[in-house]
Amino acid sequence: MRADVPLAKAYLLINHGPVTLVSSRSGECSNVMAAAWAMPLDFDPPKVLVVIDRTTFTRELVDRSGEFALNVPPRRLAATVVAVGSTSGRDGDKWSRCGVGMLPASRIAAPLVAGCVAWLECRVLDERPTERRYDLFIAEVVAAAADDRVFSDGRWHFADEADKTLHYVAGGQFFATGEPLLAGQRS
Amino acid sequence: MRADVPLAKAYLLINHGPVTLVSSRSGECSNVMAAAWAMPLDFDPPKVLVVIDRTTFTRELVDRSGEFALNVPPRRLAATVVAVGSTSGRDGDKWSRCGVGMLPASRIAAPLVAGCVAWLECRVLDERPTERRYDLFIAEVVAAAADDRVFSDGRWHFADEADKTLHYVAGGQFFATGEPLLAGQRS
Repeated sequence: MRADVPLAKAYLLINHGPVTLVSSRSGECSNVMAAAWAMPLDFDPPKVLVVIDRTTFTRELVDRSGEFALNVPPRRLAATVVAVGSTSGRDGDKWSRCGVGMLPASRIAAPLVAGCVAWLECRVLDERPTERRYDLFIAEVVAAAADDRVFSDGRWHFADEADKTLHYVAGGQFFATGEPLLAGQRS
Repeated sequence: MRADVPLAKAYLLINHGPVTLVSSRSGECSNVMAAAWAMPLDFDPPKVLVVIDRTTFTRELVDRSGEFALNVPPRRLAATVVAVGSTSGRDGDKWSRCGVGMLPASRIAAPLVAGCVAWLECRVLDERPTERRYDLFIAEVVAAAADDRVFSDGRWHFADEADKTLHYVAGGQFFATGEPLLAGQRS
């Protein structure tokens, strides 16, 4: 079940460095792409960074709308991550072509990706020089949610292998998120 | 054995989102801190992003020197990551206090962290507004190396559990890097 995550805990959804899917919409057009280069930038209010190449269709939609969602796919969607990461939304609707389902977001117009285990709804902050120079977007997280089978009370608890998040390497290669460990208390 | 990694492959050392240690030096002072918020920004020439809080001693050293290294610790250093992440170099030398060994870097003055499995030597690009506003540093990677027992020919090959890289959650909790999987070819 999709359950809201308090904004102050939103960073936990991507703190471990999982690959993400960036979903976006402008008017009638929506799209989804893969992004390994996304991370938290601040805790509360939560901010995130994501690199969105200037040649992508997603970039057009984000430039026009000022919004996107970061969706965190589980292992069972690995092939989908590769599919949406290796085709362009300019060549036809990726949602139907790649068999990706949409969910409505709560605070932004962009759709969320069905079957993901966490979702961060984001509004782009006005940092045009950084966008233009580095394709780097700085955004505020305005809503966050997770599948409460795998994340609740501020903690990940992967039971099923197929629910684990993914870490992207290159060329269709990933690592699944591995064994949890505790190494002393941070003060 | 520490072996050079070609600059065009340097992004692979942190593409999967591992936690990093940031090492720095200015004059006689050097320091090491933990940073989960680091990622690639570009392929070639390689660039990286890292968040370095304005209250840290590392920030002083990086502001003064314009250099730092990102070191990728393996699982056997998990307790060290927590130790250097929960104390300040202002309270005494962290290297000796936390039992962290130094290696000489090849292109920068900052020391590298011994026992890590990958190292990125970085020079800060002049993006002061981004640093001041977000504590976000944009840097070019000027040299890269890896322990060739776990990374060679552009591929990670973790054999030993203790060699696996780490993904930081919060409160001393990590995930080890998990099972590799291939999900089709990216074009």
